[in-house]
Amino acid sequence: MAETLTLLDYWPSMFGMRCRIALREKDIKFEYQEQDLWSKSPLLLEMNPIYKKIPVLIHNGKPICESLIIVEYIDETWKGKAPLLPSDPYERAQARFWADYVDKKIYEGGRNVWSTTGEDQGEAKKEYIERLKVLEGVLGDKPFFGGDSFGFTDIALIPYYSWFYSYEICANFSIEAECPKLISWAKRCMEKESVSESLPDPEKIYMLLLELKKKAGK
Amino acid sequence: MAETLTLLDYWPSMFGMRCRIALREKDIKFEYQEQDLWSKSPLLLEMNPIYKKIPVLIHNGKPICESLIIVEYIDETWKGKAPLLPSDPYERAQARFWADYVDKKIYEGGRNVWSTTGEDQGEAKKEYIERLKVLEGVLGDKPFFGGDSFGFTDIALIPYYSWFYSYEICANFSIEAECPKLISWAKRCMEKESVSESLPDPEKIYMLLLELKKKAGK
Repeated sequence: MAETLTLLDYWPSMFGMRCRIALREKDIKFEYQEQDLWSKSPLLLEMNPIYKKIPVLIHNGKPICESLIIVEYIDETWKGKAPLLPSDPYERAQARFWADYVDKKIYEGGRNVWSTTGEDQGEAKKEYIERLKVLEGVLGDKPFFGGDSFGFTDIALIPYYSWFYSYEICANFSIEAECPKLISWAKRCMEKESVSESLPDPEKIYMLLLELKKKAGK
Repeated sequence: MAETLTLLDYWPSMFGMRCRIALREKDIKFEYQEQDLWSKSPLLLEMNPIYKKIPVLIHNGKPICESLIIVEYIDETWKGKAPLLPSDPYERAQARFWADYVDKKIYEGGRNVWSTTGEDQGEAKKEYIERLKVLEGVLGDKPFFGGDSFGFTDIALIPYYSWFYSYEICANFSIEAECPKLISWAKRCMEKESVSESLPDPEKIYMLLLELKKKAGK
């Protein structure tokens, strides 16, 4: 039986982007299925009955959910090319810790920046920059979070780069001015085809955000 | 240099219990260091500057934080005995998915049960039981979540068993009446020394909870 591999995804999703990048890093062909999150498909509901969310990777009919779990699955299933997690257990734990930090702090932090105004937005911006500076400190002078090669923490974080433009316009600040090393890292990541092919145009995300804000009456 | 292994922990912590169980499953000697969470030690602040939380496993001076990451680290570092994660990538992804579900739904669900009253508590109880029933469905007729042997998802969930007694008294209900198979599973886990040695006396947790509620004026 021929192998089948389908990604249920939604183009501006940071979580979906992670899976696209991981699959492209491994040079694996997959079918991309764009999902309408306002009218969820029977396939999405069947494949992720618990959270009913994208991304879902369906490999030979079996679903894997939650983006970081999907990326680890991809890494473990296609071991040969471009290892994403390091081999040393301590380094692996560090990569998982920082990817988890991105999930806990960076998603919500960004949302707080674009969805607030006035004083609240000032606070949100300050907090977001502090969180990014923590990551910049972890990066240090290394080319990538894992060291010399692009890996798990890089994959967890780089999708947010496509949202930075929106945050900056919504809140009138420059992330590059605050975190120049982090932006250099992001540009380095964008030189990889796996990344540049997986991240949407930041202006397209901004147009979407304007629509979302309009819908929410903000 | 002799190997050193220290666990910074707090006795009623479900997250700490996971690490204790994993270390005992592997038959590894470790130094247990009880922490005062109301007056955090310089060691804890140094070892987990990001979250300032237990548990932290310090292995030869290097800290590993976040309980599920610690359990994976233990599994990867001491591979020989009692593998905690399955070897098949799909099974591993499933184990990670359900352990993550426990983190996302069961901790907060239990807290909602004991910290509310009246109608809110009724709602919280209903929701908590629904979430436990999801897990009971995943367990099915298997002895453990991973199948025949005790593993990652079991370790993620079993610490909550020591809190069930408190939830039941606080909210006047029986988890066993609602989820009999899950309680049979919990009793099966408790037959393992690694588990029974790591879980505190449920009555002691209840006494602590009474104190916490008193402090919070509830």
